[in-house]
Amino acid sequence: MSALLGLGDMLAGRFGERWIAHEAGRAQFMAAEGHHAAGMPDVVAQPRTIEDVQMLMAAAHAAGVPVVPLGVGTSLEGNAGAVAGAVSVDLSGMNRVLEVAPEDLLCVVEPGVTREALNEELRATGLFFPIDPGANATLGGMISTRASGTNAVRYGTMRENVLGLRVVLPDGTLIRTGSRARKSAAGYDLTHLFAGSEGTLGLIVEASVRLHGIPEAVLAGSWGFDSLDGAVQTVIETIQSGVPVARMELLDPVAIRACNAYAGLTLAEQPTLFVELHGSPRGVAEQREMLSAIGAEHGGGALTISADRDEQRRLWRARHAALPAARAMVTDAVTWSTDICVPISKLAGAISGARAAIDAAGLLAPILGHVGDGNYHVFFVLRRDDAAGWAKARAVNEELIDYALSVGGTCTGEHGIGIGKRGALVREHGADAVALMRRIKAAIDPAGLMNPGKIFAEE
Amino acid sequence: MSALLGLGDMLAGRFGERWIAHEAGRAQFMAAEGHHAAGMPDVVAQPRTIEDVQMLMAAAHAAGVPVVPLGVGTSLEGNAGAVAGAVSVDLSGMNRVLEVAPEDLLCVVEPGVTREALNEELRATGLFFPIDPGANATLGGMISTRASGTNAVRYGTMRENVLGLRVVLPDGTLIRTGSRARKSAAGYDLTHLFAGSEGTLGLIVEASVRLHGIPEAVLAGSWGFDSLDGAVQTVIETIQSGVPVARMELLDPVAIRACNAYAGLTLAEQPTLFVELHGSPRGVAEQREMLSAIGAEHGGGALTISADRDEQRRLWRARHAALPAARAMVTDAVTWSTDICVPISKLAGAISGARAAIDAAGLLAPILGHVGDGNYHVFFVLRRDDAAGWAKARAVNEELIDYALSVGGTCTGEHGIGIGKRGALVREHGADAVALMRRIKAAIDPAGLMNPGKIFAEE
Repeated sequence: MSALLGLGDMLAGRFGERWIAHEAGRAQFMAAEGHHAAGMPDVVAQPRTIEDVQMLMAAAHAAGVPVVPLGVGTSLEGNAGAVAGAVSVDLSGMNRVLEVAPEDLLCVVEPGVTREALNEELRATGLFFPIDPGANATLGGMISTRASGTNAVRYGTMRENVLGLRVVLPDGTLIRTGSRARKSAAGYDLTHLFAGSEGTLGLIVEASVRLHGIPEAVLAGSWGFDSLDGAVQTVIETIQSGVPVARMELLDPVAIRACNAYAGLTLAEQPTLFVELHGSPRGVAEQREMLSAIGAEHGGGALTISADRDEQRRLWRARHAALPAARAMVTDAVTWSTDICVPISKLAGAISGARAAIDAAGLLAPILGHVGDGNYHVFFVLRRDDAAGWAKARAVNEELIDYALSVGGTCTGEHGIGIGKRGALVREHGADAVALMRRIKAAIDPAGLMNPGKIFAEE
Repeated sequence: MSALLGLGDMLAGRFGERWIAHEAGRAQFMAAEGHHAAGMPDVVAQPRTIEDVQMLMAAAHAAGVPVVPLGVGTSLEGNAGAVAGAVSVDLSGMNRVLEVAPEDLLCVVEPGVTREALNEELRATGLFFPIDPGANATLGGMISTRASGTNAVRYGTMRENVLGLRVVLPDGTLIRTGSRARKSAAGYDLTHLFAGSEGTLGLIVEASVRLHGIPEAVLAGSWGFDSLDGAVQTVIETIQSGVPVARMELLDPVAIRACNAYAGLTLAEQPTLFVELHGSPRGVAEQREMLSAIGAEHGGGALTISADRDEQRRLWRARHAALPAARAMVTDAVTWSTDICVPISKLAGAISGARAAIDAAGLLAPILGHVGDGNYHVFFVLRRDDAAGWAKARAVNEELIDYALSVGGTCTGEHGIGIGKRGALVREHGADAVALMRRIKAAIDPAGLMNPGKIFAEE
């Protein structure tokens, strides 16, 4: 703590009230959407400029003080959780859109810009930023966890949509990665090394991301199925047939029940796909025909989708509220969102296996997912004091991960490793690959000051 | 050399005739398509299995012998050029397609599989591997240089199409990166660190790559324009409008002249786009209408495209033969292909600037390009002994790179750094970013044995 106090003295002149050491201020930064216990940062710094960040990092480096980057706190695996003796760096105030270049289908943003704010700013351009993880996360946070979400089937994840970064390294050095060109073969791909590194290698202070044209026609709606397997088989065949759906989300009957109650929907409590199609009017009509034909073979009801923007907004608002909706199913409950991604052909086995495991354990847990990517979530709904329930949920989660790894999938499609999946990381990639990641970490952050304890268990 | 002899003795039992130390054998591996002088390897090893590679790497590591990975030698920047005292590892014999998984739209290959062999093998599945750099390169080589080519506009580059790798590290350790899932947020993105690292970090011994459905309808043809600028503006607006063209290649009048002569075409010697559209029959018809409308405003002639596969094959064969076609313009000439990629809005300036610089220098050089990506090539056609011509070409190349960097582009879209662009790498990313790349290199290859002298100038 004395190193932290010394750092505070050193930076007080520059940061002033943006160096938050009093308890009431720090307590604002405890919030965490995930199921991990939220700690209070020992101190929070609020940089406004790249120079602020550089000075902070250089001083922390000199003082040996760890640094934890923070966005708006929507991450789910404790990725940005407080670390004792560390300074938490709240980047949400660096939230300017620095440049929009419609002619190159890109924009340049500070890390604290949220996806909703960005799309608001883009409205007049006819372009949009497609990555939509549900929560109104910051771009910096989304890059740091390689986030994706509902639109990734068609538009890719943050990985495919980040062109370049400016990063402050642990010693305060500022580097630029990538370029504004759509592709490059110039040297090591540092952009994609920092994307997904969860703040363990440096601090992202600027990002260039790809934009996409707002589609001429959009159709969206919900689609009920006789069986969970029928809904999933429809997804699998849709992807295998190359139908370019924009969004394809699964909600099981428990999820529908939660959303009906929370968001005032009146959907039948059956396995349901929320579908969105983008394209020209003729293009979306054609996609709709292809989808209908596939679904009809798997117990799908009528595919009633609409071009009405308000109806579409209501639908996606309900989908995005699924996590609080699940939480509201039980008084004083906490939700724990798992995050598995499997090869598309294994999705039916993964989801029916998940449902069976949840039911066998007697847990309450809707299943939802960005199923077009093979990515799904189980939302365990638990009271904090239900020790037996948490133990069962932990066991089911491990079972889901084991299944995913046994079929070539991954323990996390989009939430990252944080503190919750450090063990799973080793099971997924093997000890030698994780040892290599640690060598890279040590090469870039030799003092181990960047977001310590995240991704890798401390040795 | 004595270390190399010792290594040969150690490995003779395992490699037998696949350890090639005699001059006639080694001379087979001098061929290089690029303009860099081709050296002869001191010894060539031909592994057939991952275990061969692991044993070779471990032994070379113990003996302190450098290792240079080789595919089929189509790289253009000396990326796989011989290094004195090193063993060149010819991976072209590890050329099996290990698995095709149509249900997951992926396949698993050894690094020596060529793209043509892979697509031949995929024919019955209705799927194809889209990355097509022109040359019949190996998948391992294409991953190592982050190659792309004519189809990248629609299907992305190797970066977007590689899902996972198996890599033998410099000490012989085998690791696995990535997964079979379409996305993952599990730890550092090692897959994309190795992709584009040009064999300087380890040896790729297996790759999982994405496949795509063969489109129902394909239209292709050539499209003449009144002016170079009109052709380029058509490309820019096509991309900005989001028309999902599969291929969009520019050939300037000099390139057309070369292709007419070499491939027996009879195209008018004017700025020309080679275009290919993929989709449903209605989809390609719609794309065609949109393209025609854009081109009509920029001096485009009739867009005559056809569904005839033989005609399409003839067209692309001519495009792919552009490099030898350029070489054939002058007796005993060598071609030097530059490789610039700029943000799409800067393409007109880049290409008109290139033509002006070439003409001002009095050089013979067709301009071609994967212009839908903002990527173009100048093929300097030069006799080896034309010292003044080479000096002028070097100056023009630097000018093209400077322009690209000044507008946020890159010094290489797809050929990589090799030995030819080591200086440009530093100009593009800055000394601090390149220093970081070197720290990563040192962490993974502390003895500096992997493809030394490539990407980074030796210190």
